[in-house]
Amino acid sequence: MPAHDAVVAALERRGELWHPAPGLVALRGSVLALYERLERAIQALAASLSLEHWRVPPALGLHSLGRADYFASFPHWLTVAAHLSERNDLLERMAQSGGAGDALCQALMPPDVALSPAACYHVYEHLAGTTLPDALTVSVQCTCWRHEGATLAPLLRGWAFTMREVVCVGSDEAVTHTIERGLEAASVFAAALGLAATVAPAVDPFFAPTARGRTLLQRVKELKRELLVPHGRDGSMAVASFNRHGEFFGDAFGIRTASGQPAASGCVAFGVERWLLAVLCAHGTEPRDWPQVNDVSAATGVPQP
Amino acid sequence: MPAHDAVVAALERRGELWHPAPGLVALRGSVLALYERLERAIQALAASLSLEHWRVPPALGLHSLGRADYFASFPHWLTVAAHLSERNDLLERMAQSGGAGDALCQALMPPDVALSPAACYHVYEHLAGTTLPDALTVSVQCTCWRHEGATLAPLLRGWAFTMREVVCVGSDEAVTHTIERGLEAASVFAAALGLAATVAPAVDPFFAPTARGRTLLQRVKELKRELLVPHGRDGSMAVASFNRHGEFFGDAFGIRTASGQPAASGCVAFGVERWLLAVLCAHGTEPRDWPQVNDVSAATGVPQP
Repeated sequence: MPAHDAVVAALERRGELWHPAPGLVALRGSVLALYERLERAIQALAASLSLEHWRVPPALGLHSLGRADYFASFPHWLTVAAHLSERNDLLERMAQSGGAGDALCQALMPPDVALSPAACYHVYEHLAGTTLPDALTVSVQCTCWRHEGATLAPLLRGWAFTMREVVCVGSDEAVTHTIERGLEAASVFAAALGLAATVAPAVDPFFAPTARGRTLLQRVKELKRELLVPHGRDGSMAVASFNRHGEFFGDAFGIRTASGQPAASGCVAFGVERWLLAVLCAHGTEPRDWPQVNDVSAATGVPQP
Repeated sequence: MPAHDAVVAALERRGELWHPAPGLVALRGSVLALYERLERAIQALAASLSLEHWRVPPALGLHSLGRADYFASFPHWLTVAAHLSERNDLLERMAQSGGAGDALCQALMPPDVALSPAACYHVYEHLAGTTLPDALTVSVQCTCWRHEGATLAPLLRGWAFTMREVVCVGSDEAVTHTIERGLEAASVFAAALGLAATVAPAVDPFFAPTARGRTLLQRVKELKRELLVPHGRDGSMAVASFNRHGEFFGDAFGIRTASGQPAASGCVAFGVERWLLAVLCAHGTEPRDWPQVNDVSAATGVPQP
């Protein structure tokens, strides 16, 4: 099995993958066609687990991330979007500078929004302050941003990458039902793609001072599991994760169930570029060796909507 | 015909549109289904005008925008993506601050990338320094960011919005051919959707000190045209634009034709959210009154790939 860097190098030689900036990837040709088949199949899987789907924007107010305790949990990943001042003198300096360094930094306004670090925050934000008559299960996809410094690697760990999530908010039972169905569907999908996937308990890489309590809680209560697939001889990566949050987000965003209690939540998350990488590591970079993704999607046994 | 704000208000009341932050929009339900039909139809139109399609990343190196003279031309629109320092003391302050103000600004690294202000820059960047044996026509879509301050309005003028472009790089003749075919296809598409569209010469809103020469050049040489549709009683908006750049980008990015000359370029750009707004203004917000977008796409007479 080729390692992820050998796969990326082969696609670069073929001119079908390039990375214009660290952690940012472009695709064309046959590997893009494979990516799109996988993206559509994952979309169909997610739809079969969801009551509805939403189109969410690419960024999120910092106040919403604050409610979710994001700054204490994952400050190291944060990427913000910032626009410039409308002051003409600052813009003129920018225009004359050719965009370099100082003039840009001085013209930047303090940011109000972050580029989405996960798709599910948009769901909690929109449901904030509401009471849900029934459990709600929503499929959402967005480009997510997590800056992981020196560990960025094309397809494996992007600064920007594509995440499809099924988010369930409601009773504990509804969340359990969604997560167990999601785990089954993702496992069947992986098997049909010829991936040697395993499910394992996992913990999030919380920021150090916050990590002790949170990590222990995740481990003891088995809140997070991942679907792992191999890449190369020794590596493995998570292509999907299955996350129970208890009442954390229900409490933080004031989302209640019909009984007046804070709602439970959970999500099933798919990293789309990693599914592409997993197929390429398992079957190589030659299109003739790739599995029929459309057939695979139909073969999971998960009813289509 | 309802004005754009009346359309937005009706969708908000129905719970199918919300804007979590200024210039950022979320959709669900029947209006999302209409958006997706329009997006697919525009994708098919663009494919019929293009040799290939690329998946481009959501951001672009500042040095590439600098080559395109972006900082002199449109500094007022610029939106950057910035991550945080890896310094633990700065991150700890962030974590303790709950993400507010000072701690965040001090932890921000000077930005290296901008969120794409247009999809076509990715094409020039990737072709930089190459010689093209033949003209290349590429379909690309990305979320584009332009900060237009107080004029932001949902669907009409987003901080982030969706742009599909057909980009042609090669001879003058190839560029003319792509733009004229694009203009015809966009006009037929608009007519089939029941939109009262007109084509008009236009100029880009260049930043003041740069504007004089550029605006004059665009006007005299008729480099930019727009497909305008009405919204409300008095308003009109561009749903597509048709842009000739001469050898500007070929020169700036060192892209040459087989003869050794800087390549010409041009693009046909579709603002996807504006097509949605145009249909809603023309036909109202009731799904039963909406046109059959799939049929419309087939009716344009542009051959499908």
